[in-house]
Amino acid sequence: MSELRKDPIMKRWVIVASERSLKPYDFPSEGEVATYPCAFCPGQERLTPPEVFSFRKENTGPDQPGWTVRVIPNKFPAVQASDFFYHADSGLFEKMAGVGVHEVIIETPEHYSDLADLPVQHIEKILHTFCQRMEAAEKDPKLKYCLIFKNQGKEAGASIQHPHSQLIAIPVVPKRVEEELEGAREYFYRKKSCVFCDLIREEMTRAERVILVNSDFLVCIPYAARFPYEIWVLPIRHTSSFLTVSLEEIRSLSLVLKKTLQAIKVGLDRAPFNFILHVAPFSRSGENYETYYHWHIEILPALTKIAGFEWGSGFYINPVIPEEAAQNLKNFVPKE
Amino acid sequence: MSELRKDPIMKRWVIVASERSLKPYDFPSEGEVATYPCAFCPGQERLTPPEVFSFRKENTGPDQPGWTVRVIPNKFPAVQASDFFYHADSGLFEKMAGVGVHEVIIETPEHYSDLADLPVQHIEKILHTFCQRMEAAEKDPKLKYCLIFKNQGKEAGASIQHPHSQLIAIPVVPKRVEEELEGAREYFYRKKSCVFCDLIREEMTRAERVILVNSDFLVCIPYAARFPYEIWVLPIRHTSSFLTVSLEEIRSLSLVLKKTLQAIKVGLDRAPFNFILHVAPFSRSGENYETYYHWHIEILPALTKIAGFEWGSGFYINPVIPEEAAQNLKNFVPKE
Repeated sequence: MSELRKDPIMKRWVIVASERSLKPYDFPSEGEVATYPCAFCPGQERLTPPEVFSFRKENTGPDQPGWTVRVIPNKFPAVQASDFFYHADSGLFEKMAGVGVHEVIIETPEHYSDLADLPVQHIEKILHTFCQRMEAAEKDPKLKYCLIFKNQGKEAGASIQHPHSQLIAIPVVPKRVEEELEGAREYFYRKKSCVFCDLIREEMTRAERVILVNSDFLVCIPYAARFPYEIWVLPIRHTSSFLTVSLEEIRSLSLVLKKTLQAIKVGLDRAPFNFILHVAPFSRSGENYETYYHWHIEILPALTKIAGFEWGSGFYINPVIPEEAAQNLKNFVPKE
Repeated sequence: MSELRKDPIMKRWVIVASERSLKPYDFPSEGEVATYPCAFCPGQERLTPPEVFSFRKENTGPDQPGWTVRVIPNKFPAVQASDFFYHADSGLFEKMAGVGVHEVIIETPEHYSDLADLPVQHIEKILHTFCQRMEAAEKDPKLKYCLIFKNQGKEAGASIQHPHSQLIAIPVVPKRVEEELEGAREYFYRKKSCVFCDLIREEMTRAERVILVNSDFLVCIPYAARFPYEIWVLPIRHTSSFLTVSLEEIRSLSLVLKKTLQAIKVGLDRAPFNFILHVAPFSRSGENYETYYHWHIEILPALTKIAGFEWGSGFYINPVIPEEAAQNLKNFVPKE
């Protein structure tokens, strides 16, 4: 079982997970061909831990072919379910059992497919799967936060080529989320409004960083983008939780996501990227995140390398002006 | 000129520097041979901006061969000196002129050399150069912080093979440093002692994460290391500034650094890495950093990829247990 450790100066948690070094690395490199069919392909279900959820054809059973989206526990988990829990703090050194949930959402049976190419109805199923698994993770009272993310392409940290996302639920609210909550809370107390809602209004008025907009979602390059072509997908309706999103909104999001990912694929020459779904922590803490927090998606193309200056400062050097990035990318958004 | 922009939610600054996309990328990839001699090699001085400092043989003039360490302004600067300055804040969108200093410290005339292989006396000269350039950067009253760092190897973000470090001085204290200062300040008010001094004592007592120690410096793997084989070099004498380090301490640090870099080179098979020198902000702010802050060096081998989970959470997954990393690396520290 892994261990969570907290840095005594930075208050930053790390997961020390020595099992992770066994993670298979099947990405093709230098002409080498990746394993196909892989463990995520239909017919190979016995190679993965038993599924915990799937969308599948009638009259097919769990861990058999016939699924369109399939969720399995990660075989090399960063954290895992356990009744054994500890939390110790010596003053300088604080640690905690690596309890949590680490699942893989296999997005399609097609090994060589790509989220951008899936039909809108299929993307809808993936988003419904996100909701379902998030809800399931919230049931463990030890857990405080659930992060859903996707690494596409080797340069973005993917180790398996078959299209998939991941879910990690952990017993602490992560630093990056705490900082967002703090920024949003501080703004709310000062201005009596949600910083995300105000940003959405401002971006829609200025229009210079907008890539795509419909009645439910705004897709834009943020004002202080860390990375070239960093993209935010913001729901126009204020809510802190992904679980309160309506069926119509899910449908709308699927279309918006497909168009955005198509623009990345064509306009940025299949750039590798990370996709992050940011929602409020589990609500049982008593804190009312709903008033000031606003869920959203961040898409971070991996076009530049993070180096000493970024590690040392937390600053980022972005060589592409956000307004120009938006204008460029806009041209690659499919019309319908 | 570049622009500094602040994220309205995260309070994180980015440098939008569109000139940087012109940066030459001369690292050999897929069998391609790097330019040799490069612009950093002796005899090619006319290809770089005029030098601002050098250690050189008597009777040789600036921008001529005969130097052992040479400092030049970065040809593609992230920030640059300017009398023109602006700082504007619309409430949501805050920006500032990208003023500052961005210099390259060419560590040796030898293109194919490596910091780990240089004689201790040569490393001393590089460290003295760091001091000299830091002191020079502090003279501009617009600037608040000076970061010296080194990217070694393509995977760590180096774009030029010739051994070099960089210095960036900027008009704001970076977030990553603010967080360290805050953590150290908070600890000081609570415990009436420096968190780094307490850590040094604790690590030396436990010994399980120590790689190397002499009378002036401790080299260890931190308790909550973010990366496999992350290394901290901590001065045993408490001081927040690199500029107050004595000649004997510089000599001692050179030896300790050489041994540590040799251990990385041999033990980690020439792993690419980032090297970061963390010091207190320029002292003119009136804040007395000296009481609670403690300068140090962080060395971050680039052995794992940063992916969606790390970007989304600020958590890190470290597949190598810090105590095991220290024990492994210790075996590769040269005896004398």
